[in-house]
Amino acid sequence: MSRFACGIEYDGGAYRGWQRQLGSRTVQGVVEGALTQIASVPVSIVGAGRTDAGVHALGQVAHFDSPVVRSERQWLLGANSMLPEDVALTWVKSVPTDFHARYSALWRRYQYQVFSRSARSPLRRQRALWTHDVLAPATMTAAASYLLGEHDFSAFRAAACQSKSSTRNLMGIKIARRQTGLLIEVTANAFLHHMVRNIVGTLLVIGRGERPPQWCGQLLLNRDRTQSGATAPAHGLRLDHVAYPAEYGLP
Amino acid sequence: MSRFACGIEYDGGAYRGWQRQLGSRTVQGVVEGALTQIASVPVSIVGAGRTDAGVHALGQVAHFDSPVVRSERQWLLGANSMLPEDVALTWVKSVPTDFHARYSALWRRYQYQVFSRSARSPLRRQRALWTHDVLAPATMTAAASYLLGEHDFSAFRAAACQSKSSTRNLMGIKIARRQTGLLIEVTANAFLHHMVRNIVGTLLVIGRGERPPQWCGQLLLNRDRTQSGATAPAHGLRLDHVAYPAEYGLP
Repeated sequence: MSRFACGIEYDGGAYRGWQRQLGSRTVQGVVEGALTQIASVPVSIVGAGRTDAGVHALGQVAHFDSPVVRSERQWLLGANSMLPEDVALTWVKSVPTDFHARYSALWRRYQYQVFSRSARSPLRRQRALWTHDVLAPATMTAAASYLLGEHDFSAFRAAACQSKSSTRNLMGIKIARRQTGLLIEVTANAFLHHMVRNIVGTLLVIGRGERPPQWCGQLLLNRDRTQSGATAPAHGLRLDHVAYPAEYGLP
Repeated sequence: MSRFACGIEYDGGAYRGWQRQLGSRTVQGVVEGALTQIASVPVSIVGAGRTDAGVHALGQVAHFDSPVVRSERQWLLGANSMLPEDVALTWVKSVPTDFHARYSALWRRYQYQVFSRSARSPLRRQRALWTHDVLAPATMTAAASYLLGEHDFSAFRAAACQSKSSTRNLMGIKIARRQTGLLIEVTANAFLHHMVRNIVGTLLVIGRGERPPQWCGQLLLNRDRTQSGATAPAHGLRLDHVAYPAEYGLP
Protein backbone atom coordinates (compact mmCIF):
# COMPACT_ATOMS: atom_id res chain seq x y z
CA MET A 1 0.00 0.00 0.00
CA SER A 2 1.47 3.38 -1.00
CA ARG A 3 0.07 6.86 -0.49
CA PHE A 4 -0.27 9.60 -3.12
CA ALA A 5 -1.14 13.27 -2.82
CA CYS A 6 -2.72 15.14 -5.74
CA GLY A 7 -3.72 18.67 -6.75
CA ILE A 8 -7.25 19.11 -8.08
CA GLU A 9 -8.68 22.00 -10.10
CA TYR A 10 -12.43 22.25 -10.68
CA ASP A 11 -15.25 24.43 -11.91
CA GLY A 12 -17.73 23.85 -9.09
CA GLY A 13 -20.74 25.13 -11.04
CA ALA A 14 -22.21 21.70 -11.76
CA TYR A 15 -21.40 20.03 -8.41
CA ARG A 16 -23.10 19.64 -5.05
CA GLY A 17 -19.77 20.56 -3.47
CA TRP A 18 -16.70 18.50 -2.65
CA GLN A 19 -17.96 15.83 -0.29
CA ARG A 20 -19.21 12.47 -1.52
CA GLN A 21 -23.02 12.11 -1.20
CA LEU A 22 -25.16 9.24 -2.31
CA GLY A 23 -27.23 10.27 -5.32
CA SER A 24 -25.50 13.66 -5.82
CA ARG A 25 -22.78 14.63 -8.24
CA THR A 26 -19.83 15.79 -6.12
CA VAL A 27 -16.18 16.45 -6.91
CA GLN A 28 -14.94 13.80 -4.47
CA GLY A 29 -17.38 11.38 -6.08
CA VAL A 30 -16.16 11.87 -9.66
CA VAL A 31 -12.46 11.83 -8.67
CA GLU A 32 -12.91 8.61 -6.69
CA GLY A 33 -14.79 7.19 -9.68
CA ALA A 34 -11.88 7.96 -12.03
CA LEU A 35 -9.20 6.60 -9.65
CA THR A 36 -11.28 3.48 -9.04
CA GLN A 37 -11.43 2.83 -12.79
CA ILE A 38 -7.65 3.13 -13.04
CA ALA A 39 -7.02 0.86 -10.05
CA SER A 40 -9.83 -1.60 -10.92
CA VAL A 41 -10.56 -1.72 -7.16
CA PRO A 42 -12.30 0.94 -5.02
CA VAL A 43 -10.12 3.98 -4.19
CA SER A 44 -11.32 6.61 -1.73
CA ILE A 45 -9.75 10.04 -1.27
CA VAL A 46 -9.45 12.55 1.59
CA GLY A 47 -9.58 16.25 0.65
CA ALA A 48 -7.93 19.20 2.40
CA GLY A 49 -11.13 21.28 2.41
CA ARG A 50 -14.79 20.49 1.86
CA THR A 51 -15.84 23.21 -0.57
CA ASP A 52 -19.57 24.06 -0.77
CA ALA A 53 -21.86 23.49 -3.75
CA GLY A 54 -20.86 25.86 -6.57
CA VAL A 55 -17.46 26.81 -5.11
CA HIS A 56 -14.44 26.41 -7.42
CA ALA A 57 -10.89 25.22 -6.72
CA LEU A 58 -7.59 26.02 -8.37
CA GLY A 59 -5.52 24.14 -5.77
CA GLN A 60 -7.57 21.62 -3.80
CA VAL A 61 -5.32 18.88 -2.38
CA ALA A 62 -6.27 15.30 -1.59
CA HIS A 63 -4.58 12.02 -0.70
CA PHE A 64 -5.38 8.40 -1.43
CA ASP A 65 -3.91 4.97 -0.73
CA SER A 66 -3.21 2.87 -3.77
CA PRO A 67 -3.86 -0.86 -3.58
CA VAL A 68 -2.07 -1.36 -6.93
CA VAL A 69 1.27 -0.41 -8.45
CA ARG A 70 0.87 2.75 -10.57
CA SER A 71 3.31 5.60 -11.22
CA GLU A 72 2.53 9.28 -10.50
CA ARG A 73 2.29 9.83 -14.24
CA GLN A 74 -0.08 6.91 -14.75
CA TRP A 75 -2.45 8.25 -12.09
CA LEU A 76 -2.29 11.78 -13.53
CA LEU A 77 -2.82 10.95 -17.20
CA GLY A 78 -5.26 8.15 -16.46
CA ALA A 79 -7.46 10.26 -14.17
CA ASN A 80 -7.50 13.25 -16.54
CA SER A 81 -8.55 11.10 -19.46
CA MET A 82 -11.48 9.78 -17.42
CA LEU A 83 -12.60 12.90 -15.51
CA PRO A 84 -15.24 15.27 -16.97
CA GLU A 85 -13.95 18.53 -18.48
CA ASP A 86 -14.81 20.56 -15.36
CA VAL A 87 -12.48 18.56 -13.06
CA ALA A 88 -8.77 17.72 -13.50
CA LEU A 89 -5.79 16.56 -11.46
CA THR A 90 -2.96 19.08 -11.82
CA TRP A 91 -0.24 16.90 -10.24
CA VAL A 92 0.19 13.57 -8.42
CA LYS A 93 3.01 12.88 -5.97
CA SER A 94 4.04 9.88 -3.90
CA VAL A 95 4.04 10.79 -0.17
CA PRO A 96 4.89 8.98 3.09
CA THR A 97 1.92 7.37 4.86
CA ASP A 98 2.00 9.96 7.64
CA PHE A 99 0.84 12.60 5.12
CA HIS A 100 -2.80 13.57 5.53
CA ALA A 101 -4.39 16.10 3.11
CA ARG A 102 -6.55 17.56 5.87
CA TYR A 103 -4.51 17.20 9.06
CA SER A 104 -1.05 17.90 7.62
CA ALA A 105 -2.20 21.20 6.04
CA LEU A 106 -0.58 24.32 7.54
CA TRP A 107 -2.97 26.85 6.00
CA ARG A 108 -5.53 27.38 3.23
CA ARG A 109 -6.04 30.39 0.98
CA TYR A 110 -9.34 31.30 -0.68
CA GLN A 111 -10.04 34.01 -3.24
CA TYR A 112 -13.37 35.82 -3.68
CA GLN A 113 -14.01 37.86 -6.84
CA VAL A 114 -16.42 40.80 -6.95
CA PHE A 115 -17.36 42.45 -10.25
CA SER A 116 -18.70 46.02 -9.97
CA ARG A 117 -20.51 47.56 -12.94
CA SER A 118 -23.99 48.83 -13.70
CA ALA A 119 -24.38 46.16 -16.41
CA ARG A 120 -23.89 42.48 -15.64
CA SER A 121 -20.94 40.60 -17.22
CA PRO A 122 -21.61 37.53 -19.42
CA LEU A 123 -17.89 36.63 -19.45
CA ARG A 124 -17.47 36.74 -15.67
CA ARG A 125 -20.88 35.51 -14.57
CA GLN A 126 -19.62 32.08 -13.47
CA ARG A 127 -16.60 33.26 -11.44
CA ALA A 128 -17.44 36.60 -9.83
CA LEU A 129 -20.24 38.10 -7.76
CA TRP A 130 -21.83 40.96 -9.70
CA THR A 131 -22.83 44.11 -7.85
CA HIS A 132 -24.11 47.55 -8.94
CA ASP A 133 -22.63 49.00 -5.78
CA VAL A 134 -19.52 51.14 -5.62
CA LEU A 135 -17.31 49.56 -2.93
CA ALA A 136 -14.64 51.24 -0.80
CA PRO A 137 -11.67 48.83 -0.52
CA ALA A 138 -9.82 50.93 2.08
CA THR A 139 -12.81 50.80 4.45
CA MET A 140 -13.13 47.05 3.86
CA THR A 141 -9.43 46.58 4.66
CA ALA A 142 -9.87 48.52 7.91
CA ALA A 143 -12.82 46.28 8.82
CA ALA A 144 -10.93 43.10 7.92
CA SER A 145 -8.05 44.03 10.27
CA TYR A 146 -10.34 43.28 13.26
CA LEU A 147 -10.47 39.64 12.16
CA LEU A 148 -6.71 39.01 11.96
CA GLY A 149 -5.26 36.54 14.44
CA GLU A 150 -6.74 33.75 16.54
CA HIS A 151 -10.41 34.29 17.41
CA ASP A 152 -13.68 32.53 18.06
CA PHE A 153 -15.34 32.92 14.63
CA SER A 154 -18.87 31.87 15.72
CA ALA A 155 -20.25 35.09 14.18
CA PHE A 156 -19.14 33.87 10.74
CA ARG A 157 -20.01 30.21 11.08
CA ALA A 158 -22.91 28.40 9.40
CA ALA A 159 -25.57 26.92 11.69
CA ALA A 160 -24.82 23.52 10.11
CA CYS A 161 -21.09 23.68 10.93
CA GLN A 162 -19.96 20.44 12.58
CA SER A 163 -16.57 21.55 13.85
CA LYS A 164 -15.96 21.01 17.59
CA SER A 165 -14.04 24.23 18.02
CA SER A 166 -14.98 27.61 16.52
CA THR A 167 -11.49 29.03 17.06
CA ARG A 168 -9.44 29.67 13.92
CA ASN A 169 -6.27 31.62 13.16
CA LEU A 170 -6.93 34.14 10.40
CA MET A 171 -3.48 34.82 8.98
CA GLY A 172 -4.32 37.37 6.30
CA ILE A 173 -7.03 39.21 4.39
CA LYS A 174 -6.01 41.18 1.31
CA ILE A 175 -8.53 43.35 -0.51
CA ALA A 176 -7.15 44.43 -3.88
CA ARG A 177 -8.83 46.76 -6.35
CA ARG A 178 -9.03 45.33 -9.86
CA GLN A 179 -9.92 47.03 -13.14
CA THR A 180 -13.49 45.82 -12.83
CA GLY A 181 -14.00 45.14 -9.15
CA LEU A 182 -12.30 43.64 -6.13
CA LEU A 183 -10.30 40.57 -5.26
CA ILE A 184 -10.54 39.40 -1.65
CA GLU A 185 -7.92 36.87 -0.50
CA VAL A 186 -8.38 35.18 2.87
CA THR A 187 -5.77 32.93 4.49
CA ALA A 188 -6.28 30.90 7.69
CA ASN A 189 -4.98 27.74 9.33
CA ALA A 190 -8.47 26.31 8.63
CA PHE A 191 -11.99 27.58 7.99
CA LEU A 192 -15.39 26.98 9.55
CA HIS A 193 -18.36 26.12 7.33
CA HIS A 194 -19.30 29.22 5.21
CA MET A 195 -16.67 31.28 7.05
CA VAL A 196 -15.14 32.96 3.97
CA ARG A 197 -18.54 33.66 2.40
CA ASN A 198 -19.90 35.11 5.67
CA ILE A 199 -16.82 37.33 6.10
CA VAL A 200 -17.15 38.52 2.47
CA GLY A 201 -20.88 39.22 2.97
CA THR A 202 -20.06 41.35 6.01
CA LEU A 203 -17.23 43.22 4.26
CA LEU A 204 -19.60 44.05 1.36
CA VAL A 205 -22.06 45.70 3.78
CA ILE A 206 -19.17 47.82 5.11
CA GLY A 207 -17.75 48.48 1.61
CA ARG A 208 -21.13 49.95 0.58
CA GLY A 209 -20.93 52.30 3.57
CA GLU A 210 -23.96 50.85 5.35
CA ARG A 211 -21.95 50.09 8.48
CA PRO A 212 -18.59 51.37 9.82
CA PRO A 213 -15.45 49.18 9.93
CA GLN A 214 -15.79 48.81 13.72
CA TRP A 215 -19.01 46.85 13.18
CA CYS A 216 -16.85 43.93 12.03
CA GLY A 217 -14.96 43.91 15.35
CA GLN A 218 -18.22 44.10 17.29
CA LEU A 219 -19.73 41.16 15.36
CA LEU A 220 -16.67 39.05 16.14
CA LEU A 221 -17.00 39.79 19.87
CA ASN A 222 -20.79 39.14 19.91
CA ARG A 223 -20.34 35.67 18.36
CA ASP A 224 -23.86 35.84 16.97
CA ARG A 225 -24.24 34.72 13.36
CA THR A 226 -27.67 36.32 13.00
CA GLN A 227 -26.19 39.83 13.20
CA SER A 228 -23.52 39.60 10.46
CA GLY A 229 -23.86 40.07 6.69
CA ALA A 230 -25.61 37.63 4.36
CA THR A 231 -23.56 34.67 3.09
CA ALA A 232 -21.95 35.77 -0.21
CA PRO A 233 -22.88 33.56 -3.22
CA ALA A 234 -20.76 30.45 -3.85
CA HIS A 235 -19.76 31.14 -7.48
CA GLY A 236 -17.42 34.04 -6.54
CA LEU A 237 -15.32 31.78 -4.28
CA ARG A 238 -12.30 29.66 -5.20
CA LEU A 239 -9.98 27.54 -3.04
CA ASP A 240 -6.60 28.67 -4.34
CA HIS A 241 -3.89 27.01 -2.26
CA VAL A 242 -3.32 24.57 0.57
CA ALA A 243 0.15 24.69 2.16
CA TYR A 244 2.03 21.73 3.71
CA PRO A 245 5.37 21.31 5.50
CA ALA A 246 8.24 21.60 2.97
CA GLU A 247 9.46 18.09 3.85
CA TYR A 248 6.67 16.60 1.70
CA GLY A 249 8.02 18.43 -1.36
CA LEU A 250 4.60 19.08 -2.90
CA PRO A 251 4.40 21.36 -6.00
CA MET B 1 -36.05 58.05 -36.23
CA SER B 2 -33.01 58.29 -33.95
CA ARG B 3 -29.82 56.22 -33.96
CA PHE B 4 -28.20 54.52 -30.98
CA ALA B 5 -24.82 52.81 -30.56
CA CYS B 6 -24.32 50.10 -27.94
CA GLY B 7 -21.54 48.00 -26.43
CA ILE B 8 -22.14 44.25 -26.26
CA GLU B 9 -20.36 41.65 -24.14
CA TYR B 10 -20.96 37.95 -24.77
CA ASP B 11 -19.82 34.44 -24.00
CA GLY B 12 -19.87 33.01 -27.52
CA GLY B 13 -19.83 29.37 -26.39
CA ALA B 14 -23.51 28.72 -27.13
CA TYR B 15 -23.82 30.78 -30.34
CA ARG B 16 -23.36 30.18 -34.07
CA GLY B 17 -21.42 33.45 -34.15
CA TRP B 18 -22.55 37.05 -34.44
CA GLN B 19 -24.49 37.18 -37.69
CA ARG B 20 -28.23 36.57 -37.86
CA GLN B 21 -29.09 33.21 -39.49
CA LEU B 22 -32.49 31.67 -39.95
CA GLY B 23 -32.86 28.71 -37.60
CA SER B 24 -29.58 29.30 -35.71
CA ARG B 25 -29.01 30.95 -32.35
CA THR B 26 -26.74 33.93 -33.01
CA VAL B 27 -25.76 36.96 -30.93
CA GLN B 28 -27.21 39.43 -33.44
CA GLY B 29 -30.41 37.38 -33.40
CA VAL B 30 -30.91 37.45 -29.62
CA VAL B 31 -29.99 41.15 -29.32
CA GLU B 32 -32.42 42.07 -32.11
CA GLY B 33 -35.03 39.94 -30.38
CA ALA B 34 -34.60 41.82 -27.10
CA LEU B 35 -34.62 45.30 -28.74
CA THR B 36 -37.69 44.34 -30.79
CA GLN B 37 -39.54 43.39 -27.60
CA ILE B 38 -38.70 46.77 -26.05
CA ALA B 39 -39.74 48.72 -29.16
CA SER B 40 -42.77 46.52 -29.93
CA VAL B 41 -41.77 46.83 -33.60
CA PRO B 42 -38.90 45.07 -35.41
CA VAL B 43 -35.45 46.53 -34.68
CA SER B 44 -32.39 45.38 -36.62
CA ILE B 45 -28.78 46.06 -35.64
CA VAL B 46 -25.46 46.41 -37.47
CA GLY B 47 -22.35 45.09 -35.70
CA ALA B 48 -18.76 46.31 -35.99
CA GLY B 49 -17.37 42.82 -36.50
CA ARG B 50 -18.91 39.47 -37.39
CA THR B 51 -17.34 37.15 -34.82
CA ASP B 52 -17.26 33.41 -35.62
CA ALA B 53 -19.16 30.67 -33.81
CA GLY B 54 -17.71 30.24 -30.30
CA VAL B 55 -15.76 33.53 -30.28
CA HIS B 56 -16.39 35.84 -27.29
CA ALA B 57 -16.65 39.63 -27.09
CA LEU B 58 -15.89 42.07 -24.30
CA GLY B 59 -16.45 45.15 -26.47
CA GLN B 60 -18.48 44.41 -29.60
CA VAL B 61 -20.17 47.59 -30.88
CA ALA B 62 -23.42 47.85 -32.85
CA HIS B 63 -25.90 50.51 -33.94
CA PHE B 64 -29.63 50.51 -34.50
CA ASP B 65 -32.33 52.96 -35.53
CA SER B 66 -35.16 53.37 -33.10
CA PRO B 67 -38.67 53.79 -34.48
CA VAL B 68 -39.94 54.70 -30.98
CA VAL B 69 -39.00 57.16 -28.24
CA ARG B 70 -36.84 55.43 -25.61
CA SER B 71 -33.97 56.77 -23.48
CA GLU B 72 -30.44 55.29 -23.43
CA ARG B 73 -31.20 53.93 -19.96
CA GLN B 74 -34.49 52.37 -21.04
CA TRP B 75 -32.76 50.50 -23.87
CA LEU B 76 -29.91 49.36 -21.59
CA LEU B 77 -31.98 48.12 -18.65
CA GLY B 78 -34.76 46.77 -20.86
CA ALA B 79 -32.42 44.78 -23.10
CA ASN B 80 -30.42 43.35 -20.18
CA SER B 81 -33.56 42.18 -18.42
CA MET B 82 -34.60 40.32 -21.58
CA LEU B 83 -31.27 38.97 -22.87
CA PRO B 84 -29.99 35.52 -21.79
CA GLU B 85 -27.23 35.48 -19.15
CA ASP B 86 -24.47 34.95 -21.75
CA VAL B 87 -25.18 38.25 -23.58
CA ALA B 88 -25.47 41.79 -22.19
CA LEU B 89 -25.38 45.39 -23.38
CA THR B 90 -22.68 47.27 -21.46
CA TRP B 91 -23.73 50.79 -22.59
CA VAL B 92 -26.16 52.52 -24.97
CA LYS B 93 -25.52 55.96 -26.44
CA SER B 94 -27.46 58.23 -28.77
CA VAL B 95 -25.38 58.96 -31.92
CA PRO B 96 -25.87 61.08 -35.07
CA THR B 97 -27.29 59.20 -38.07
CA ASP B 98 -23.93 59.32 -39.89
CA PHE B 99 -22.52 56.91 -37.29
CA HIS B 100 -22.10 53.37 -38.60
CA ALA B 101 -20.81 50.61 -36.27
CA ARG B 102 -18.92 48.94 -39.12
CA TYR B 103 -17.86 51.78 -41.44
CA SER B 104 -17.09 54.41 -38.79
CA ALA B 105 -14.74 52.08 -36.89
CA LEU B 106 -11.08 53.14 -36.91
CA TRP B 107 -9.65 49.88 -35.64
CA ARG B 108 -10.49 46.64 -33.82
CA ARG B 109 -8.49 44.80 -31.15
CA TYR B 110 -8.77 41.07 -30.48
CA GLN B 111 -7.20 39.03 -27.67
CA TYR B 112 -6.23 35.36 -27.90
CA GLN B 113 -5.48 33.39 -24.71
CA VAL B 114 -3.19 30.37 -24.64
CA PHE B 115 -2.91 28.21 -21.52
CA SER B 116 0.29 26.09 -21.30
CA ARG B 117 0.44 23.23 -18.78
CA SER B 118 0.77 19.48 -18.90
CA ALA B 119 -2.67 19.09 -17.27
CA ARG B 120 -5.75 20.73 -18.76
CA SER B 121 -7.49 23.55 -16.84
CA PRO B 122 -11.18 23.13 -15.86
CA LEU B 123 -11.40 26.82 -14.84
CA ARG B 124 -9.98 28.18 -18.11
CA ARG B 125 -11.36 25.62 -20.54
CA GLN B 126 -13.96 27.98 -22.02
CA ARG B 127 -11.70 31.00 -22.57
CA ALA B 128 -8.21 29.76 -23.45
CA LEU B 129 -6.62 27.31 -25.85
CA TRP B 130 -4.88 24.58 -23.86
CA THR B 131 -1.52 23.31 -25.06
CA HIS B 132 1.13 20.95 -23.62
CA ASP B 133 3.76 22.77 -25.61
CA VAL B 134 6.31 25.15 -24.18
CA LEU B 135 6.11 28.30 -26.33
CA ALA B 136 8.83 30.90 -26.94
CA PRO B 137 7.17 34.36 -26.84
CA ALA B 138 10.29 36.21 -28.06
CA THR B 139 10.44 34.08 -31.22
CA MET B 140 6.71 34.61 -31.77
CA THR B 141 7.15 38.37 -31.40
CA ALA B 142 9.96 38.30 -33.99
CA ALA B 143 7.67 36.39 -36.37
CA ALA B 144 4.74 38.74 -35.75
CA SER B 145 6.83 41.77 -36.70
CA TYR B 146 6.76 40.62 -40.37
CA LEU B 147 2.99 41.17 -40.35
CA LEU B 148 2.96 44.78 -39.11
CA GLY B 149 1.74 47.43 -41.52
CA GLU B 150 -0.42 47.33 -44.65
CA HIS B 151 -0.25 44.00 -46.49
CA ASP B 152 -2.23 41.58 -48.59
CA PHE B 153 -3.27 39.04 -45.93
CA SER B 154 -4.50 36.33 -48.34
CA ALA B 155 -2.25 33.80 -46.56
CA PHE B 156 -4.31 34.25 -43.39
CA ARG B 157 -7.77 34.49 -44.96
CA ALA B 158 -10.49 31.82 -44.84
CA ALA B 159 -11.57 30.35 -48.18
CA ALA B 160 -15.10 31.51 -47.38
CA CYS B 161 -14.06 35.15 -46.85
CA GLN B 162 -16.35 37.47 -48.83
CA SER B 163 -14.32 40.66 -48.56
CA LYS B 164 -13.48 42.33 -51.91
CA SER B 165 -10.03 43.40 -50.81
CA SER B 166 -7.54 41.26 -48.91
CA THR B 167 -5.45 44.27 -47.87
CA ARG B 168 -5.52 45.20 -44.21
CA ASN B 169 -3.43 47.44 -41.97
CA LEU B 170 -2.10 45.44 -39.02
CA MET B 171 -1.34 48.09 -36.44
CA GLY B 172 -0.01 45.96 -33.60
CA ILE B 173 0.64 42.46 -32.27
CA LYS B 174 1.63 42.10 -28.63
CA ILE B 175 2.63 38.71 -27.22
CA ALA B 176 2.74 38.83 -23.42
CA ARG B 177 3.84 36.03 -21.13
CA ARG B 178 1.29 35.30 -18.40
CA GLN B 179 1.68 33.16 -15.27
CA THR B 180 0.03 30.25 -17.03
CA GLY B 181 0.53 30.91 -20.72
CA LEU B 182 0.42 33.67 -23.30
CA LEU B 183 -1.83 36.55 -24.21
CA ILE B 184 -1.77 37.58 -27.88
CA GLU B 185 -3.30 40.96 -28.72
CA VAL B 186 -3.85 41.85 -32.37
CA THR B 187 -4.97 45.28 -33.58
CA ALA B 188 -5.89 46.18 -37.19
CA ASN B 189 -8.07 48.64 -39.08
CA ALA B 190 -10.23 45.60 -39.95
CA PHE B 191 -9.85 41.82 -40.19
CA LEU B 192 -10.48 39.23 -42.88
CA HIS B 193 -12.50 36.11 -42.07
CA HIS B 194 -10.47 33.88 -39.65
CA MET B 195 -7.51 36.27 -39.92
CA VAL B 196 -6.70 36.45 -36.17
CA ARG B 197 -7.13 32.70 -35.68
CA ASN B 198 -4.95 31.91 -38.72
CA ILE B 199 -2.23 34.31 -37.52
CA VAL B 200 -2.34 32.74 -34.04
CA GLY B 201 -2.18 29.22 -35.53
CA THR B 202 0.93 30.20 -37.47
CA LEU B 203 2.58 31.90 -34.47
CA LEU B 204 2.00 28.74 -32.40
CA VAL B 205 3.92 26.64 -34.97
CA ILE B 206 6.81 29.12 -34.68
CA GLY B 207 6.52 29.36 -30.87
CA ARG B 208 6.96 25.57 -30.65
CA GLY B 209 10.16 25.91 -32.69
CA GLU B 210 8.88 23.92 -35.68
CA ARG B 211 9.53 26.83 -38.06
CA PRO B 212 11.75 29.94 -37.85
CA PRO B 213 10.27 33.45 -37.48
CA GLN B 214 11.11 34.25 -41.13
CA TRP B 215 8.56 31.62 -42.21
CA CYS B 216 5.85 34.08 -41.21
CA GLY B 217 7.24 36.72 -43.60
CA GLN B 218 7.50 34.14 -46.38
CA LEU B 219 3.88 33.01 -45.90
CA LEU B 220 2.68 36.60 -46.14
CA LEU B 221 4.54 37.07 -49.45
CA ASN B 222 3.31 33.75 -50.88
CA ARG B 223 -0.35 34.66 -50.21
CA ASP B 224 -1.25 30.97 -50.08
CA ARG B 225 -3.56 29.98 -47.20
CA THR B 226 -2.78 26.27 -47.60
CA GLN B 227 0.82 26.79 -46.39
CA SER B 228 0.17 28.61 -43.09
CA GLY B 229 -0.68 27.19 -39.65
CA ALA B 230 -4.01 25.59 -38.74
CA THR B 231 -6.82 27.94 -37.68
CA ALA B 232 -6.60 28.29 -33.88
CA PRO B 233 -9.80 27.22 -32.02
CA ALA B 234 -12.54 29.83 -31.57
CA HIS B 235 -12.92 29.64 -27.77
CA GLY B 236 -9.51 31.31 -27.10
CA LEU B 237 -10.52 34.44 -29.05
CA ARG B 238 -12.27 37.56 -27.76
CA LEU B 239 -13.16 40.84 -29.53
CA ASP B 240 -11.94 43.35 -26.95
CA HIS B 241 -12.34 46.82 -28.37
CA VAL B 242 -13.58 48.73 -31.40
CA ALA B 243 -12.37 52.34 -31.70
CA TYR B 244 -14.29 55.25 -33.25
CA PRO B 245 -13.54 58.94 -33.87
CA ALA B 246 -13.61 60.86 -30.58
CA GLU B 247 -16.39 63.15 -31.90
CA TYR B 248 -18.94 60.39 -31.24
CA GLY B 249 -18.02 60.37 -27.54
CA LEU B 250 -18.49 56.61 -27.10
CA PRO B 251 -17.41 55.04 -23.75
